[in-house]
Amino acid sequence: MPFPPTPAVQVVPAAFQLAAIAPDSIAPFSTKEAAQARLLALKARLSELQELLYAEHRRSLLLVFQAMDTGGKDGAIEKLLTGVNPAGVHVAAFKAPSTNELNHDFLWRIHPHAPGRGHIAVFNRSHYEDVLITRVHGLIDDTTCYQRYTDINAFERLLTHSGTRILKFFLHISKEEQAQRLRARLADPAKHWKFDPNDLKERKLWPAYQQAYEDALRHCSPPESPWFVVPADNKWARDLAIAEIVVAALEEMNPQPPGVSFDVAAQVVE
Amino acid sequence: MPFPPTPAVQVVPAAFQLAAIAPDSIAPFSTKEAAQARLLALKARLSELQELLYAEHRRSLLLVFQAMDTGGKDGAIEKLLTGVNPAGVHVAAFKAPSTNELNHDFLWRIHPHAPGRGHIAVFNRSHYEDVLITRVHGLIDDTTCYQRYTDINAFERLLTHSGTRILKFFLHISKEEQAQRLRARLADPAKHWKFDPNDLKERKLWPAYQQAYEDALRHCSPPESPWFVVPADNKWARDLAIAEIVVAALEEMNPQPPGVSFDVAAQVVE
Repeated sequence: MPFPPTPAVQVVPAAFQLAAIAPDSIAPFSTKEAAQARLLALKARLSELQELLYAEHRRSLLLVFQAMDTGGKDGAIEKLLTGVNPAGVHVAAFKAPSTNELNHDFLWRIHPHAPGRGHIAVFNRSHYEDVLITRVHGLIDDTTCYQRYTDINAFERLLTHSGTRILKFFLHISKEEQAQRLRARLADPAKHWKFDPNDLKERKLWPAYQQAYEDALRHCSPPESPWFVVPADNKWARDLAIAEIVVAALEEMNPQPPGVSFDVAAQVVE
Repeated sequence: MPFPPTPAVQVVPAAFQLAAIAPDSIAPFSTKEAAQARLLALKARLSELQELLYAEHRRSLLLVFQAMDTGGKDGAIEKLLTGVNPAGVHVAAFKAPSTNELNHDFLWRIHPHAPGRGHIAVFNRSHYEDVLITRVHGLIDDTTCYQRYTDINAFERLLTHSGTRILKFFLHISKEEQAQRLRARLADPAKHWKFDPNDLKERKLWPAYQQAYEDALRHCSPPESPWFVVPADNKWARDLAIAEIVVAALEEMNPQPPGVSFDVAAQVVE
């Protein structure tokens, strides 16, 4: 489908180079003020579309969010979905796997969170961690990593076959922007709970992470479940880009309330 | 704790009579206009408290909603929680149990939906269905029903011991109000998908349901996980009463961001 123009770039495997995408890009958006008005309109429409999707009870939507630390996953999810009826939304945050989860295939803990008919599921981190952090830290070799790409593609195809529309967002920040955000967390006692000293160790692995992301995004971007690289140094451009893409996908799905399966005239309320 | 004055009645077992509570009560609330302003203020505060609960990551909140058909569970949940960050809210809707669920104890399918630390869980229907519809239809005898009351009280005590605050809301409508709402659904094609012809059969069992509710609420209202009977013929009074009680409970919990577990000065972002 043709998505509306945003700073986000849909990954086309053959041509994809992560470094070619500027994390501070905002074009074709203009100003933050204009973006805020547009975002409000899109969020109102998103609420309507969610209600229709729920009423239709036939298909579902899965949004996957990945980013480097401080990349804005929590903020982007909050900004997009606050205001939508929580009864139709399930946000799953995937942390470090438990011992029991590690005793199973890497999709075992993911599958139960796939969205049911009529629902929107949001993954804050996801099955992609198993081809990112694991690869950067040498917990899996390249052969296993490439096996997992095929497993991921098959898994997402399964969901697609079952009526789930999948949109995946990599929030793309610069290394300098991450430094500023980490420093801001340290400078503000109210933000200390968001700071993890371990983030500084991961930051030293920046180039390896960028490489692992580029490889994963290139190998797991079939047309039916594409990755979008969302320039995310500017939060307002990030949020608007995501909203434009999500609403456009739902408009294309065009959910409709189901028809009536009973004789309306025969129903008498006594 | 002393809850703020609302039309809702906290169930005190010894004295409880469901029929003594008027479904159209609004006192001490005055007008719908005043209620709307107050509701907006409470929802803004609820958003703040949710964020603090999430940051604290120590305790959790469970809200249980039960009602006769058309009683307003979906609407009340939407009204209370739309606007709160969905990342911290999990709404579980319990429909007719599956064959596999029926092959287990009645709390087996419920337990996985208990809220994790920092989260708010909302049950749209709940484990109480297993002492309501099952009893009204004679699927369980009184002995089993009273056993289940003790099982429910023990289960809720377990959650309470683990840091979960439990608030339970019975949305109390009159039989005439239900008739009006069912007729409204039939009259409006856009609402047909919400209508289930089976609701008319259940409606004929109204007195048995009221009796089953009265018995369940009386036997499962320990001070730490009380039932509230919320007069619900007036939607605005219903929504405000629930918001007042939920916000008051969270204010009493007084969630606080956790302290810092690392040496802030030693963190250098390079």
